[in-house]
Amino acid sequence: MRTSIATVCLSGGLVEKLHACAAAGFDGVEIMDADLVGAYESPEEIRELCRRLGLTVEMFQPFRDVEGVDDATFAQSLRRAEAKFEVMERVGADLLLVCSNVATATVDDDAVAAAQLGALADAAAAHGIRIAYEALAWGRYVDDYRRAWRIVEQADRPNLGVCLDSFHILSRGHDPSGIEEIPGDRIFFLQLADAPELDMDLLSWSRHHRLFPGEGAFDLTGFLSHVLRAGYAGPLSLEVFNDTFRQTDVTRTAAHARRSLTWLADRTAHARGWDDGRLGDAQEARRIDFVEVGGADLRELDELLDQLGFSFRGRHRSKAVRLWAAGDARVILNEEVRDATPVLTAFGLGVDDARAAADRAAALGAPKVFRRTYAGERELPAVAAPDGTQVYWDDVAAAASWAGEFEGGGPAAPLVASVDHINVAYAWQDFDEAVLFMSSVAALHTDSTAEVPGPHGLVRSQVMRSLDGVVRVPMNLAPPTAPLPTRHVAFRVDDVVAVARAARARGLRFLPVPGNYYDDLAARFDPDPGWLETLRGLDLLYDRDEAGEFVHFYTHTFGGVFLEVVERRAGYEGYGAANAPVRLSAQRELDRRG
Amino acid sequence: MRTSIATVCLSGGLVEKLHACAAAGFDGVEIMDADLVGAYESPEEIRELCRRLGLTVEMFQPFRDVEGVDDATFAQSLRRAEAKFEVMERVGADLLLVCSNVATATVDDDAVAAAQLGALADAAAAHGIRIAYEALAWGRYVDDYRRAWRIVEQADRPNLGVCLDSFHILSRGHDPSGIEEIPGDRIFFLQLADAPELDMDLLSWSRHHRLFPGEGAFDLTGFLSHVLRAGYAGPLSLEVFNDTFRQTDVTRTAAHARRSLTWLADRTAHARGWDDGRLGDAQEARRIDFVEVGGADLRELDELLDQLGFSFRGRHRSKAVRLWAAGDARVILNEEVRDATPVLTAFGLGVDDARAAADRAAALGAPKVFRRTYAGERELPAVAAPDGTQVYWDDVAAAASWAGEFEGGGPAAPLVASVDHINVAYAWQDFDEAVLFMSSVAALHTDSTAEVPGPHGLVRSQVMRSLDGVVRVPMNLAPPTAPLPTRHVAFRVDDVVAVARAARARGLRFLPVPGNYYDDLAARFDPDPGWLETLRGLDLLYDRDEAGEFVHFYTHTFGGVFLEVVERRAGYEGYGAANAPVRLSAQRELDRRG
Repeated sequence: MRTSIATVCLSGGLVEKLHACAAAGFDGVEIMDADLVGAYESPEEIRELCRRLGLTVEMFQPFRDVEGVDDATFAQSLRRAEAKFEVMERVGADLLLVCSNVATATVDDDAVAAAQLGALADAAAAHGIRIAYEALAWGRYVDDYRRAWRIVEQADRPNLGVCLDSFHILSRGHDPSGIEEIPGDRIFFLQLADAPELDMDLLSWSRHHRLFPGEGAFDLTGFLSHVLRAGYAGPLSLEVFNDTFRQTDVTRTAAHARRSLTWLADRTAHARGWDDGRLGDAQEARRIDFVEVGGADLRELDELLDQLGFSFRGRHRSKAVRLWAAGDARVILNEEVRDATPVLTAFGLGVDDARAAADRAAALGAPKVFRRTYAGERELPAVAAPDGTQVYWDDVAAAASWAGEFEGGGPAAPLVASVDHINVAYAWQDFDEAVLFMSSVAALHTDSTAEVPGPHGLVRSQVMRSLDGVVRVPMNLAPPTAPLPTRHVAFRVDDVVAVARAARARGLRFLPVPGNYYDDLAARFDPDPGWLETLRGLDLLYDRDEAGEFVHFYTHTFGGVFLEVVERRAGYEGYGAANAPVRLSAQRELDRRG
Repeated sequence: MRTSIATVCLSGGLVEKLHACAAAGFDGVEIMDADLVGAYESPEEIRELCRRLGLTVEMFQPFRDVEGVDDATFAQSLRRAEAKFEVMERVGADLLLVCSNVATATVDDDAVAAAQLGALADAAAAHGIRIAYEALAWGRYVDDYRRAWRIVEQADRPNLGVCLDSFHILSRGHDPSGIEEIPGDRIFFLQLADAPELDMDLLSWSRHHRLFPGEGAFDLTGFLSHVLRAGYAGPLSLEVFNDTFRQTDVTRTAAHARRSLTWLADRTAHARGWDDGRLGDAQEARRIDFVEVGGADLRELDELLDQLGFSFRGRHRSKAVRLWAAGDARVILNEEVRDATPVLTAFGLGVDDARAAADRAAALGAPKVFRRTYAGERELPAVAAPDGTQVYWDDVAAAASWAGEFEGGGPAAPLVASVDHINVAYAWQDFDEAVLFMSSVAALHTDSTAEVPGPHGLVRSQVMRSLDGVVRVPMNLAPPTAPLPTRHVAFRVDDVVAVARAARARGLRFLPVPGNYYDDLAARFDPDPGWLETLRGLDLLYDRDEAGEFVHFYTHTFGGVFLEVVERRAGYEGYGAANAPVRLSAQRELDRRG
């Protein structure tokens, strides 16, 4: 599988883009005409740079508004094309993308289009150049890949083929199975883009909201299967117009883009039983082994966990690290970090084969995390998520044997808890990258989304979870000008009222809930008055849906982390999104008061 | 004219919002239920705070999903309403917004809806509360204000009326003239929102992209006229759901919101020949009197202007300020500033009546700029635009007599120039505020928009200009994570080639244009080879449209400002947008090289 990317996907100047593409491991690039025009480097310099970096110039693009025009207009296009053929020779490109006419077409006739594209191809042949004709979703007359192919077939030139772009085909809801009727060697190029489901005009959707494969709603696995079955043997190339990726760091975005292709190839290979591009099996997360809070001085967290009813299970025998536990919930307090502020630094996932998970992560280009391990200690492989949170893996069969490295702790406490969910946070510009990371590397699956008004603006969230729902990682997306939402961990217990009562008796500082909230609860749910007073007295929040009930409370925030305790009654599967605005307001208000 | 705003428009907590609304000069507020629920302050405290701040609680909102339901569901709604009536009494609100049913309606029958709304109104009457029923654009059965009014009429309760929202009516393209058939005293409330023309689903458009009046595409003047003609005498209230305004500084956004209502009232009064809300006539900009660059040491700018062919017209007799001129173009270099980096600090507009312009600006809440003026000097009133640029006014009849305060300059140079345009820059979150400022305070008119790919992302621009096109102020909108585009001034000359040649001979540092750009020009325009070599040799850029041609060049950037020289041939009215990506790339590349 050869990989490629259009330079238009990335920010910066052309030279920077090429360096980033090479560093990310792409085999080739589509050079955007405008990127070359804006560069001080000559086409020859760019060609030599690509050669040195090991990048093939797979295509030069775009050339617009050729076919379906009158003779005079076509003559101008031929002249324009000759000038671009010269530039292509200089830059070392032998394939030109020609988009279906949007602006100048006046003749809706396949024969005319075929004759003109044929003449263009003949002119290109003199330069050893091939032409890939693509139906834009908003082409004046040609907006369907099947019609583009009929025209190419009719023109019948060896150096004229089609370019297929997943966006232009899937955004219009065209059936991609027809691709298999095109001979593979006449598909000159393949461009891949995903996109979210948006109800807006095609052009805006395409120009601003495309995503890398695996981040949107398109069935790209099915799409790619059709293309490969047709016999296409060229590169998989990304062409993703996205306002965000045009702004974000070019090196990081290129790596992110490259991961999306690895993911897509693997997924397609798995789905079809093919070998090419196939990685080891994804390691489904079976459970959360631990969560870790890092900070220079975590004594407040020790106290907090004690107040919640966790038991101290000891100090690590070689590191400034402590372990607290309650049932299946294990919390590591790690003081071997440089940042003074306590934050959620890591979590561990139990999988069938931790080594396989790590190998797969490496193949997906996830940055490996190094942690010093002493002789006799269990070594857990780990990678860093885009927000810096470290993700560790251990074999489920090992039954968290690393916990034996902690010494001097007390006995297990009676509290039975598990980690209900881990809430991580992203700036809007890192969100799509995070979704891809969590699905491809951490093998989690996209679940529900929500949008919550907070005092700093709308907070969007995307839940990632294991298929069985045991592992849940809601990701919160901060508005562009807002601070990142604070990461937190929620523990699930059987009786949140009892836990709250005991914690209060031990002096735990709850997040105080506004009294108006309880008046609103009364209006919305008509609760039993005694129950409402219990909730009010303990600063508990409440939600209900068709399936069940949710009762939960929050602790104060300690630096950059807070904890939540939840009880799920019957089949409640949500996260109390209706209560999130109240929580966000309360936290901000306390923060302002200092 | 009473003014009001819904608290949902603004960021922050409820108390902050109320303070900001009062500071901006609003007479009242619509309190959003969720804002109260998230506040630690009791309803009584909020009522007292509003009283102290002089804010009327005009409405409490929203109450959803009442009408068109089965009896059991309606009974629940009545119970829910009773709880909210109590809260309303405590917070001092006597009007409740009821939105047409979206979620629970199963009965599409006006009689049922009227009976249920009537019963709700009767329950409300016991608390002295009135109900304003509003048709949401996406209501299940009721999505048209005319149907909402028919139902209200049928229910026939004195405390049941309609709420009209410009978004819900205009977004669906419903004819607002029918409003005049509703008795004015049955229109209980009026919500105003503008919106851009967007081709997307109504709900997303409404929830994320509303704008304050004057910033979008709706004819709010016409809309408001119908409402006032109907006899409506309540407040004009803003309800603008916008992702951006939810994030931006609450005080600034409230002031911005308030300005939009002043603008709308004035515009409506002018259009209809009414007195209420009418300000003095807008002072159309007749010309640009001067542009000013500020900085601690501007000697490089002196040299630059000399190289361009400007003449030094003297030093100000009482300030560290120098004047350069060429024809009608006057450039002030102001070293009486604290910031070391040279930036475009101000420009002066010639108007028929500078005092009237300043009075109008004050009525629109524009922040006044103070500048020390010595005896015998001409005093020019000024305000600050949202990006900090100062806008001065002087009477056209005064013929820039202030220039006489500069002494010791040389004779006028032969170069004849004028200011073609002034390019200012905004972060995306300040853009709508800037559009409103430029149209309401500076009396400029929105003209063309463009979208230009730059190395930091897409740069959007909105041209503001006088009706005759003599004054042009393109505003560039920076992507969220990008640095602000550098502000610049463009001078128009008759022969840009001659100016460029002379400037080059005097040692001016041009922005070097990539050679690839000229190869692309050759492909696009097939220019005469000699002309192409002239352009290439002088680093000139070129554009052509149906009307004419545009030839221009840029200087190096000095701190935070650069200059442009343009020649417009025949009827070319643009700004060379096709060349902007090349310019942005070149500037960034030079910046990186340092």
